[in-house]
Amino acid sequence: MAEGRDELKLLGMWTSPFVIRVKLALSFKGLSYENVEEEDLYYNKSELLLKSNPVHKMVPVLLHNGKPVCESLLIVQYIDEAFSTDGPSLLPAEPYECAMARFWATYIDDKLFASAFQASRAKTEEEKAEALKQTFTAVETLEAAFKECSKGKPFFGGDSMGYLDIVLGGHIPLVYVGEVRHGIKLFDGTRSPLLEAWMERFSALDAAKAILPEVDSLIEHSKAKQARAAAMDPTASN
Amino acid sequence: MAEGRDELKLLGMWTSPFVIRVKLALSFKGLSYENVEEEDLYYNKSELLLKSNPVHKMVPVLLHNGKPVCESLLIVQYIDEAFSTDGPSLLPAEPYECAMARFWATYIDDKLFASAFQASRAKTEEEKAEALKQTFTAVETLEAAFKECSKGKPFFGGDSMGYLDIVLGGHIPLVYVGEVRHGIKLFDGTRSPLLEAWMERFSALDAAKAILPEVDSLIEHSKAKQARAAAMDPTASN
Repeated sequence: MAEGRDELKLLGMWTSPFVIRVKLALSFKGLSYENVEEEDLYYNKSELLLKSNPVHKMVPVLLHNGKPVCESLLIVQYIDEAFSTDGPSLLPAEPYECAMARFWATYIDDKLFASAFQASRAKTEEEKAEALKQTFTAVETLEAAFKECSKGKPFFGGDSMGYLDIVLGGHIPLVYVGEVRHGIKLFDGTRSPLLEAWMERFSALDAAKAILPEVDSLIEHSKAKQARAAAMDPTASN
Repeated sequence: MAEGRDELKLLGMWTSPFVIRVKLALSFKGLSYENVEEEDLYYNKSELLLKSNPVHKMVPVLLHNGKPVCESLLIVQYIDEAFSTDGPSLLPAEPYECAMARFWATYIDDKLFASAFQASRAKTEEEKAEALKQTFTAVETLEAAFKECSKGKPFFGGDSMGYLDIVLGGHIPLVYVGEVRHGIKLFDGTRSPLLEAWMERFSALDAAKAILPEVDSLIEHSKAKQARAAAMDPTASN
């Protein structure tokens, strides 16, 4: 990035996997940016956020020289294309591999983590069991996809990490939180040995360690949020 | 496309806006392909479809030399990238414009047409009114997006049509059907004069006329489907 020419500002919230994903992309590309933390996404969104993402009013938003890009998967692709000469390429160069990467990225968000989220919020044991069933089916599907994409190498991107590593990498902190808070071990040595090993490998990368928030802090935050919700609505759980 | 080297096969269903979208992309790129119509997507999906799209089991699927690409928005991007030297480019070359095109493409499917579909299937007047309110808010938002993307020119893509034109273009036949069958005029001169004019302009293009199915045939198909559903479940309505 030509410093002084390009100004990058990230509107985010430190606990969001979608924001973490964008931070990972910026980190791996070696791009510096100003981090702007939203104070209260539930009741008091900032004017800058509402102006920058009037359609969805959600984080993350990346402002590049003042121009907003929204939706984390699109932001990561944008970073890769707009800063093609900075750091490694994230998306595969080959069109078919690129289409596969985009396909699995959407799958990770819309199937795997949507089901896991439902399981963590289930109100009955039956609901939880059904959501977990869908979650683990998705894990097995993704395990097979990892095998296909990585071709026996350490990352989705092959020898070095790429787009899908970043997409899934943003969820890692919440995978650990889910294990502690909800007893859901998403990746394990029996069902998904490749993904379990991938998660350890990814978390150990310097560019990832610099970004991934502490699991203990996330757990504290999650507990505090639950306590606030319970105080406002005594019938609410989790 | 180097004939004899590349084999393209499209698994689809002629009434689907997502399949029409892919056909439009192939048409505008001047690519020839074998069209494989699914006979019964509800009760008897083909072995080829189940094998080619085991995750979602949905059309369209584009098989390129036997390798499947799924999800219509990804297929159109794939066609553009894999056949970059055939016909016009569909996605904008400039990364920011490209990010915007991807953003609005998802908006068209997930907000605009998801709401319009809900309105067409509403069981009560209240449900229909609420879905229509969301639909027309989305139309107004897209009208503003058209103004921004087209910069006063005839298409989302500027002087000639591009990715977003194709994405929205696939929905045109059902826009006409929705007007006749459900009394929902999606684009009109008051709320969305730019989109209304765009729809007429797009429909008149030779490459579009060659692809867009006859509205009368779609209406017949829609009525027959409703009659079959009513015969199987007398309480069902459309």
